Amino acid sequence: MVTSRAGEIAQSEIRRNNLSRMLSELHLRGPLTRSELAAILRLNRSTVASLIAELAARGLVWERSRDKPAPQPTPGRPSPVVEICREGPAALALELSTDWIRAAVIGLGAFVAVSVSKDLSLASSTPEQAVDEAHDLVGPILARLDHGPRVAAIGVSAPGAIRAEDGYIYHAPNLGWRDVPLGSMIGSRFADLGVPVFVGNDAHLAASAEHMRGSGRGTADFICLWGEGGIGAGIVVGGKSLSGAAGYAGEVGHMAVDPEGAECRCGSHGCWETEVGEEALLRRSGRDPKGGSAAVADLLEAAGKGEGGALAAMAESGRWLGIGIAGLVNVFNPSRVALGGLYARIDPYAHDALVNELDCRAMPAPRAMVELTTASLGADALLLGAAELALAPILRDPATVPLPGDAAAISSRRRARPPSYGWTLTPAEARR
Amino acid sequence: MVTSRAGEIAQSEIRRNNLSRMLSELHLRGPLTRSELAAILRLNRSTVASLIAELAARGLVWERSRDKPAPQPTPGRPSPVVEICREGPAALALELSTDWIRAAVIGLGAFVAVSVSKDLSLASSTPEQAVDEAHDLVGPILARLDHGPRVAAIGVSAPGAIRAEDGYIYHAPNLGWRDVPLGSMIGSRFADLGVPVFVGNDAHLAASAEHMRGSGRGTADFICLWGEGGIGAGIVVGGKSLSGAAGYAGEVGHMAVDPEGAECRCGSHGCWETEVGEEALLRRSGRDPKGGSAAVADLLEAAGKGEGGALAAMAESGRWLGIGIAGLVNVFNPSRVALGGLYARIDPYAHDALVNELDCRAMPAPRAMVELTTASLGADALLLGAAELALAPILRDPATVPLPGDAAAISSRRRARPPSYGWTLTPAEARR
Repeated sequence: MVTSRAGEIAQSEIRRNNLSRMLSELHLRGPLTRSELAAILRLNRSTVASLIAELAARGLVWERSRDKPAPQPTPGRPSPVVEICREGPAALALELSTDWIRAAVIGLGAFVAVSVSKDLSLASSTPEQAVDEAHDLVGPILARLDHGPRVAAIGVSAPGAIRAEDGYIYHAPNLGWRDVPLGSMIGSRFADLGVPVFVGNDAHLAASAEHMRGSGRGTADFICLWGEGGIGAGIVVGGKSLSGAAGYAGEVGHMAVDPEGAECRCGSHGCWETEVGEEALLRRSGRDPKGGSAAVADLLEAAGKGEGGALAAMAESGRWLGIGIAGLVNVFNPSRVALGGLYARIDPYAHDALVNELDCRAMPAPRAMVELTTASLGADALLLGAAELALAPILRDPATVPLPGDAAAISSRRRARPPSYGWTLTPAEARR
Repeated sequence: MVTSRAGEIAQSEIRRNNLSRMLSELHLRGPLTRSELAAILRLNRSTVASLIAELAARGLVWERSRDKPAPQPTPGRPSPVVEICREGPAALALELSTDWIRAAVIGLGAFVAVSVSKDLSLASSTPEQAVDEAHDLVGPILARLDHGPRVAAIGVSAPGAIRAEDGYIYHAPNLGWRDVPLGSMIGSRFADLGVPVFVGNDAHLAASAEHMRGSGRGTADFICLWGEGGIGAGIVVGGKSLSGAAGYAGEVGHMAVDPEGAECRCGSHGCWETEVGEEALLRRSGRDPKGGSAAVADLLEAAGKGEGGALAAMAESGRWLGIGIAGLVNVFNPSRVALGGLYARIDPYAHDALVNELDCRAMPAPRAMVELTTASLGADALLLGAAELALAPILRDPATVPLPGDAAAISSRRRARPPSYGWTLTPAEARR
C-alpha cells in the first residue's frame, strides 16, 4: 500500500505531469475541445476541466465558443475550444547569425507577436558589440510590448559549440569567437527583464523547431541538416534532441570524409564541411568562396537559367551531401532527413546526385525506410527553435507561472515589472 | 481534483513503476538493505516493505540477514539485505557469432546459472542449421535446469541489420545471410519452452551490457565500438540505446572515410570498416586477410614480441580508428568511448596512433571531456546483453511474473511446465 504522504507526493506529480501534457498539446496542435483533450490525454472530463481551470487561472489558456459550427456536428451541446492565451508568457528569441541579428517575441503556440532584424557582419564584431546590437534592436520591441505578452525568458540561437548548461560558446568558427560566456553576457545586458537566458546551437534549434512544427513533425528519429556557411545538424533520437554529454553533439560537418582532404576551419583535414560547405560550392562554381549570401543568390540564379558551371557545382555538392547523409542514415536509422538553409535552396539542382550516392552507400534496410525532404519553416526555424528552448521550462511545469496576485511567487522570480495578464496585443501574425 | 477512478489508475501506475524501479536497482546494484532502497528510490519504509513483499511473493527477490556485520555499525537493529532470488525467472541467452555459438541461462542480477559453447563456422551454415545447432547445444543445459531457475524468455545476439520488432535479419554480411526471420525460426524451434523470443544486433547488445555493468557504467552518453570481423557499435544517448526507427542504427562501419577507397562487403566503397576491420589489419601485417581469430592471435603474439610489421599494422589500424572515433565524438559528444572485442585486444599497440588522430580531428570541447577506455566484460558482453534484452519486460513490469498458484496468469503465458519457485541451483557463478 502506498501511504498517505507518498500518495500526496504522487498526486502532485501526476497533476504537474497532466498540466504539462495538456499545455504541450495546445502549444503544438492549436485549439482543442474538451472532448479532444480528454481523448488525447486519456483523462476523464472532470480532470480535464480541473486542469483547464488551473491553466486558465495562470493566464496560459482560455476557452471560447467555436467561431463556426463544427463540420460534422456531434450530438449534445457544442464543445467550446481551449486555446493558448496570447497574452500569456512569451520568449524573447534572439538569432545571432553570420550576417544578421534577428529578434522576436514569441508566445506559446509559436505565436509571433513581433519581430525585427538587422543586417550586420558578426564575424567582424566582438561578442560585446553583438550583444549591444541585439539590445539596441530589441529596445523598440520591448517598448511595444507594454501592450503585449510578458517576456518570461530569453532564448538565443548562435552558431558554434555551445555548452547547454550556461550558454558558454567554446568555439564559433563562423564568427571567429572563442570562449565567450554568451549566456551570462546576455543575462547582464538584459538584466532589466530579470528573466532566465537559454542559449542553443543554431542547427540544433532549427531542427528542434522543424521536428515540432515543420518537416520532422510526427517522426521520432529525424535529422535536419542545416547549411549556412558551415554545416550543422539537429538530430532527434527517439523523440528527443541529441545534445550529447554537454550540448556539443551534432557537429556532423566534422566527420572526416577524406582524411587527406582540404584543410578545414576547425584545424583538421578532409572534414565533410570542406566538401559541402558554402565555400566549397562557390569555389566549384568559379565564384569567390567568401562571397557569402550574395554570391549564393547569384549562383542560384545562374543554375535557374541552366548555366552548366553552376549546375555542375551544385551536382558535386549534392554528391558529397549524399556521401555524408548515407553515413548518417547508417548510424542513426532515421525515418526522415530534412535539408535546411542552403541545402533546401540548392536541393532542386543537387537532388539527383545526392540520391544516387545515398542509394549506393546507405545500407538497404535503413535506406528503404528513410524519407528525404526539405525543411519547411524556412529562416524562421531558428527563432522558433530559440523560443521553444526558452519556453520549455514553462511547458514542463506550467505551475511555475505564478497565479495573479501571488506576490511571493512573483518576487521570487525576480520580476522587474508587475504581472501582465489581460494586456491587449498589437497587430501580429500567428504561425503554426 | 483527480477523481477516484483516475486516482486508482494513477496509483496502480505508480505501484508498477515503483516495483520496476526497485527490481531494477537490485538487478544492477546487487543486494541492498531496506534503508538503502528507501534512500535510492526516495520512498518511505512502509512503501518499501510493501514492494519487497510483492516482489518476494512473485519469486523475484528474497530477504536474508547480512553474512557479516556491516563495516560501520549503525544504531538500531541490523537491516537485513534484499537481493535477487536466483531461483526466479531467467533468460536463455544465445549468441550466434561468425565462428561459434554460445548459450547460457542468465537470471536477474546477471547471475549466470550455466553456459556452454561450440565452435563452428556460421558463415558456412544455413540459418536453419544454425538454429538446429543452437537447439542441440541448449538441450543439455535445459535438462540440468530441472534443478535451476525457470527460463522466462529467450534473448539472441546475432550480427547484421536486425529489425527490432520481430528479430528479422535483413542482411548479415559477416554470415552471408539475407532476409532471415530469425526471431520466428527460434520461436518455432524452441516452441516447447513457450516463451517469447527477442533478437538483437551483437554490437548493440554488447554495448548495452557494457553500459549497464561494464565500461559504460554511470554514463548517459556512451559509445562502445565492437570489432569482431566487421565493426559495430552500440551507442547510448541520454541513457537510452540508440536503435533508430527500426533497430538498424549503429552501423558506424559504413560511414564513408574515403569515398574512392577499397570496396566494402556492403557493396559500397571506402567505408570505415575497410580500414579498421579485421581483414584490413591482417592484410597490413602481411597475413591472410581471411585468417580469422587464429591469424589475429598470431599477430598479437608477434606484436607482443615487438615485431616491426605487426606493430606498424596495429598503428595504422589505430590511426584509422582515431579518424572515425573523432567523427563520432563530434557527432555524439559522448562522455566515454569504449573499445571492445578486437579493438580491446589491439589497443595496447594501436592506442598512441588512435589518440593522435583523435586529438587532431575531434573538436576541442567534446574532445576535452571524452574518456577513452576498453570494454570490461570481455566476450561475455554479448550473452549478458542478450539476457538483458530478454529480461527487460520483467524489469519494466515485475507484476507480469505470476504469483504462485495464479493458474489463469500462468496458463495465459502458455507455460509448458509447472511453476518453478524454490528449485535449488546447480553450481554456478555470479558476475556483477
